[in-house]
Amino acid sequence: MVIAEITIVPLGTGNPSLSRFVAEAVTVLEDSGIRYTLTPMGTVLEGTLEEILEAVRMLHRLPFNKGAERVSTRLVIDERRDKDATAAGKVKSVEDRLKGK
Amino acid sequence: MVIAEITIVPLGTGNPSLSRFVAEAVTVLEDSGIRYTLTPMGTVLEGTLEEILEAVRMLHRLPFNKGAERVSTRLVIDERRDKDATAAGKVKSVEDRLKGK
Amino acid sequence: MVIAEITIVPLGTGNPSLSRFVAEAVTVLEDSGIRYTLTPMGTVLEGTLEEILEAVRMLHRLPFNKGAERVSTRLVIDERRDKDATAAGKVKSVEDRLKGK
Amino acid sequence: MVIAEITIVPLGTGNPSLSRFVAEAVTVLEDSGIRYTLTPMGTVLEGTLEEILEAVRMLHRLPFNKGAERVSTRLVIDERRDKDATAAGKVKSVEDRLKGK
Repeated sequence: MVIAEITIVPLGTGNPSLSRFVAEAVTVLEDSGIRYTLTPMGTVLEGTLEEILEAVRMLHRLPFNKGAERVSTRLVIDERRDKDATAAGKVKSVEDRLKGK
Repeated sequence: MVIAEITIVPLGTGNPSLSRFVAEAVTVLEDSGIRYTLTPMGTVLEGTLEEILEAVRMLHRLPFNKGAERVSTRLVIDERRDKDATAAGKVKSVEDRLKGK
Repeated sequence: MVIAEITIVPLGTGNPSLSRFVAEAVTVLEDSGIRYTLTPMGTVLEGTLEEILEAVRMLHRLPFNKGAERVSTRLVIDERRDKDATAAGKVKSVEDRLKGK
Repeated sequence: MVIAEITIVPLGTGNPSLSRFVAEAVTVLEDSGIRYTLTPMGTVLEGTLEEILEAVRMLHRLPFNKGAERVSTRLVIDERRDKDATAAGKVKSVEDRLKGK
């Protein structure tokens, strides 16, 4: 399993608000079945590399249907093979350290 | 106020785990008084641009004291001046849209 | 056509040098036929969105065969539909402005 | 010395072109004396960590004076302490490997 974060920034819309684009992306992610979590600076995805790249393909294109003339998409992929990792587990691992566990 | 996400990746440590570095970063952030939130792919910061850049300066240097020979730090800064924004408010704005509010 | 930048950061190798990983990535890109340019902080790719995502899929996996236990891959995709854009053209457009053209 | 890449994305301008913003950033970088190189997906900076963060502070704010209501700035900082590194040297190191040097 791979953990990733995607942020899609539409340009040329004349409106600095992005929430309507993110809401549409969430609707597409719901239909896709991929595991996701909204965070303040992006959407965290969990799945196989192929599932994540397919999600990127779909999400990157959405804003063009809503008036964007240019889309800048950031993606970070984090994959480790020495142990199983989950998005929630990454945060918990830091919190456990801070509690001295 | 500015919202940012920082991720610090130490290289040359011979160990793929990053949680001990993140835990140390959290301790430094606690002392600094800057508002922060852990997420699976980075740490969200809220403050003035100057506070955020000062946090970056401190956090980027930490891993060198713990054996890293190279540090790759990613930062994304999001600032809007047409309205007040908070990290929690950005997520809530999307959730409200999804609920049809 | 889409322009993208990819940077692949292997972790847990015990060696902070990345050039052997980038050299292998270049060899794979040569075989793939996708257009690429090395820059100091990443590799710029030009192609269709599908070609770029297929390149990401291949490149992200390479370091695991060379001893990395974890790979952190950054990707930025820039696509505009209001005009044709090329990687070289983006830089030239700025240079022309600076020359007052 | 630290090598970094900065990309500044203004939102809410109603125009997807970014070259006028990049040209202004270059003018500011020229005055600042920091070493920089334009690439297709960002501007590479070389200097001390403090010089780079000061450049980020200046560049991030420029688009607000040109009509942007929101600015999304990406920064990647790469610092290694086991050897001297330059932006040009990083590319050359890969090219030398490819030539079998």
